[in-house]
Amino acid sequence: MEDCIFCKIIDGKIPSAKVYEDDNVVSFLDIMPANKGHCLVVPKKHYETLLDIPDGDLANLIKATKKITKALSLSIGNGSFNIIMNNGKIAGQLVSHAHIHIIPRFKGDRLRLTWSHKKYIDQEMKSVQEKIKKFV
Amino acid sequence: MEDCIFCKIIDGKIPSAKVYEDDNVVSFLDIMPANKGHCLVVPKKHYETLLDIPDGDLANLIKATKKITKALSLSIGNGSFNIIMNNGKIAGQLVSHAHIHIIPRFKGDRLRLTWSHKKYIDQEMKSVQEKIKKFV
Repeated sequence: MEDCIFCKIIDGKIPSAKVYEDDNVVSFLDIMPANKGHCLVVPKKHYETLLDIPDGDLANLIKATKKITKALSLSIGNGSFNIIMNNGKIAGQLVSHAHIHIIPRFKGDRLRLTWSHKKYIDQEMKSVQEKIKKFV
Repeated sequence: MEDCIFCKIIDGKIPSAKVYEDDNVVSFLDIMPANKGHCLVVPKKHYETLLDIPDGDLANLIKATKKITKALSLSIGNGSFNIIMNNGKIAGQLVSHAHIHIIPRFKGDRLRLTWSHKKYIDQEMKSVQEKIKKFV
């Protein structure tokens, strides 16, 4: 896609610190890392969100994510990682080309990735469950 | 696994608000939701983290995640989602049975899921890149 920064990286028009590439997927270091070693895993085809990625490409994307997480684990030497995919602007997706973040975690890194909790009242949980089940 | 709360949910020994189930995967509402409709997607076999899940089961897990995200989108009516998988205690994994969070996002939900940024100094980015590439 013409104005997509990730498409430009994939096409080699913008430089990046690539760590992995195959026919379907590319991975490079995030230039604004949450922790050092923070990688992005990106399908080469321009899909906007998770919902747009066909199952085959999605399987390739998650397999590559596992492979790179493993490499991060062996190279940076820790076993804790957050895998995050923000879909849609309200969810914090900054580039409209689907991508997965792999964030290596270190003891005492002071990164906060928790969330506050909401409560279901009375039968609300059941009602939300039934609503979703109708469409799955 | 005997003491695993998710294995007990899968075996029906602990109740849950299930929204989806197939041969490999189960999904139910998180009882401490970041937002209403927050689902967990769990492989039926007990794997601890992403790195332990064989590629076939991983493909099934992510396909189910997409399916449930789609159903959430249709039922709860919004197009923004965070997909999060915490791997390892330091990354905030509370239950040692691999699982994916799907968190529907709503305008003004005041959920903060951002992170602060670190900086690579001089040749550090290149050196991290080379380290990872050796193992990928």
